[in-house]
Amino acid sequence: MERFVDIIHRKKLGGELSKEQIEAMIHGYCDGSIPDYQMSAMLMAICFTGLSDKELTAMTLAMRDSGSVNDLSAIKGIKVDKHSTGGVGDKTTLIIGPIAAACGIPIAKMSGRGLGFTGGTIDKLEAIPGFRTDLSTAEFFQAVQRTGICVNGQTDDLAPADKRIYALRDVTATVESIPLIAASIMSKKLAAGSDKILLDVTTGNGAFIKEYDQSLELAKKMVAIGCHAGKQTVAQLTSMDEPLGYAIGNTLEVKEAIAALHGQGPDDLMTVCYTLAAHMISLGKEIAYGQAEQEAKTAIANGSAWKTFVAMVAQQGGDISYIEHPKKFPQAHITANYRAETDGYITHMDTEGFGIAAGMLGAGRSKKDDCIDFSAGIVLHHKTNSLVKRGDVLATLHTANETLASAALQRLGYCYTICPEPAEPFALIGDFVEGPY
Amino acid sequence: MERFVDIIHRKKLGGELSKEQIEAMIHGYCDGSIPDYQMSAMLMAICFTGLSDKELTAMTLAMRDSGSVNDLSAIKGIKVDKHSTGGVGDKTTLIIGPIAAACGIPIAKMSGRGLGFTGGTIDKLEAIPGFRTDLSTAEFFQAVQRTGICVNGQTDDLAPADKRIYALRDVTATVESIPLIAASIMSKKLAAGSDKILLDVTTGNGAFIKEYDQSLELAKKMVAIGCHAGKQTVAQLTSMDEPLGYAIGNTLEVKEAIAALHGQGPDDLMTVCYTLAAHMISLGKEIAYGQAEQEAKTAIANGSAWKTFVAMVAQQGGDISYIEHPKKFPQAHITANYRAETDGYITHMDTEGFGIAAGMLGAGRSKKDDCIDFSAGIVLHHKTNSLVKRGDVLATLHTANETLASAALQRLGYCYTICPEPAEPFALIGDFVEGPY
Repeated sequence: MERFVDIIHRKKLGGELSKEQIEAMIHGYCDGSIPDYQMSAMLMAICFTGLSDKELTAMTLAMRDSGSVNDLSAIKGIKVDKHSTGGVGDKTTLIIGPIAAACGIPIAKMSGRGLGFTGGTIDKLEAIPGFRTDLSTAEFFQAVQRTGICVNGQTDDLAPADKRIYALRDVTATVESIPLIAASIMSKKLAAGSDKILLDVTTGNGAFIKEYDQSLELAKKMVAIGCHAGKQTVAQLTSMDEPLGYAIGNTLEVKEAIAALHGQGPDDLMTVCYTLAAHMISLGKEIAYGQAEQEAKTAIANGSAWKTFVAMVAQQGGDISYIEHPKKFPQAHITANYRAETDGYITHMDTEGFGIAAGMLGAGRSKKDDCIDFSAGIVLHHKTNSLVKRGDVLATLHTANETLASAALQRLGYCYTICPEPAEPFALIGDFVEGPY
Repeated sequence: MERFVDIIHRKKLGGELSKEQIEAMIHGYCDGSIPDYQMSAMLMAICFTGLSDKELTAMTLAMRDSGSVNDLSAIKGIKVDKHSTGGVGDKTTLIIGPIAAACGIPIAKMSGRGLGFTGGTIDKLEAIPGFRTDLSTAEFFQAVQRTGICVNGQTDDLAPADKRIYALRDVTATVESIPLIAASIMSKKLAAGSDKILLDVTTGNGAFIKEYDQSLELAKKMVAIGCHAGKQTVAQLTSMDEPLGYAIGNTLEVKEAIAALHGQGPDDLMTVCYTLAAHMISLGKEIAYGQAEQEAKTAIANGSAWKTFVAMVAQQGGDISYIEHPKKFPQAHITANYRAETDGYITHMDTEGFGIAAGMLGAGRSKKDDCIDFSAGIVLHHKTNSLVKRGDVLATLHTANETLASAALQRLGYCYTICPEPAEPFALIGDFVEGPY
């Protein structure tokens, strides 16, 4: 029996571990025979020496197989999953899911909650009164079969090894590692059971990974894992150098998503949604991207995406009178305006800062069990390269009380850079990555 | 209160930690508030990003202060400690201690036991029947004051933080790190309380650190720590590319040390002993190296070093009839010869392999609590660049039974390289490193 310390040593020196060694590591950590202190040393060694695609695939599959793997074969057609690596104002799932479903792609999606500065799809959906995200497996399948779409909460049994490893990484400064992030995301995506996977890899100052090159590397790693696991996987890099759209916060984002589903969303949001939806449709129907994009635009234009969204909300117990009359949504008690302190162009927006400020207002969680104020958040009035005058309202804050508002107003003071000259515009849509690797 | 995970993160990125952060780390680990899994991640990060001299000094001093620090001020004169980083056949302390003491340097030395492929001074001394290495502090002081020398076992309270950290490093593949090795050695040396420190840093295939450059870096790091801690510290690099002398194993090495104390040791052993003794005397008497070397040679030539050794053995309860008549020492039941398999020059000796083979014969420990067979070991008949003929006896094995002998004989088969041409000779004595850094 090989000692785990020798395997750590091998990885420390940059050597490649065998499939068997990696499987033994994941099993051993889950059954407690490998203690936390050895696993954390291994994870730190991986942060420095990395993992080959072979190792990474073995690790991801072992993590996937630590719990139950969904079998979606009862649902007809090619199931395509979409996953975003997170951002601020990212409500794309609410828009893309209905578009793709309206175009005939079965959407059987499991989503997560928000943590830290990024929001989560499940929280956004729960902002619709009555919306249930805890459907049983049977209900989930029925929902997809009936309306072509269901977005449900993740079950606890989805890749439990990832949960244990993530908890350890969180306290040992081993979160920031491209291969470990890739394994974490892909273990859950592969366990979720879809046939193909579209990854929206965000990049920029509001993304979890801020450097473009690193985001691209993450995309490539995840695509490689997916392909090695036998599932067609593609990745689209999208910018998170400013919040996506104008709304940040759960109810506010649902309202913006409703506008987008009527074809009236902000340009950046519409562009990202059409791009991602087109990739999903292209994967699911095995048609050219251009044709898929046309179908996505048609689904918005002819109202079929909107109808699909309404049907999904109704089916999951949501009160559709709210989405049909968005003014019905509860309003925050307090609104406060953040104003420009000087004349000029907004040359930089600290996107993570907006996410943190929205969290301070009550829209997010800093700990897993924190409560969320659905109506809290931020509505932007200007974005990068807007020409503004001193005193112009740049953002309106929505929250429950004055104290939270003034703390968040102060935080926003660090979020804008205003200069006499505009900045170089950034690319909203980056590289597209596809296998096989 | 700063979170330790953030401090690990800082170190992971290669940042420098403050003295306060490092002290909090050592205290927190000792009092249990920092768990093993965070400490092992930190140690692995240090393996990759290193420690500055400032950090290293802070860490070493915090480890020193985790237990009691010896106060040797009651002993008159400049106390000089000598420490070897370990090797095979390294019996220098038994020879240098008496030489330096005979020249008037008070030797109040605490030594350790052997572990793995290297031997320990305490084990060698205990091969002399009756020799005590568990003197009380009072006895230890009396002994030094009476005969000028005492070599005692390390107390458990010497740098306990090092013991805890070493145990964790041992199971997390974080042993091999120049700064961590330097901190471990120097925390104990500084706690031992001498005024000046001479380090014998071994290098080569029988040393713990095999690359010359790395050994030199370790020497510089340790000298820097000593100087920053306010103690004059110097280091001498010596080769461990073959065993030192001809004897490996406790009783066998005591016998060779006795010969050396009579001026009749092997050339390499005598050279290393004169060099190290000269450095000790030079440090202790603050005289030039050349003069100190002369004094060391005189102490051997006029028998004063031998007399000091006899007095030390007698004082610590050893039966001097054994050292005066070495034939009295118990002999191993079995001896077996290892013979050359071909004609030629011995161009390479796998020194670590000899240490491992001696351990297999009963001379060493693989675990802390293993028993030692004092009479077991290996006597070499030829060393590097000897011209040998097929069938010549290269080494004689001493052990308790045939099974051990045949296993060790097999192991020795991997220890020699014999070629038609001699190898480039290696330098026995390497760089001398002194502060201030």
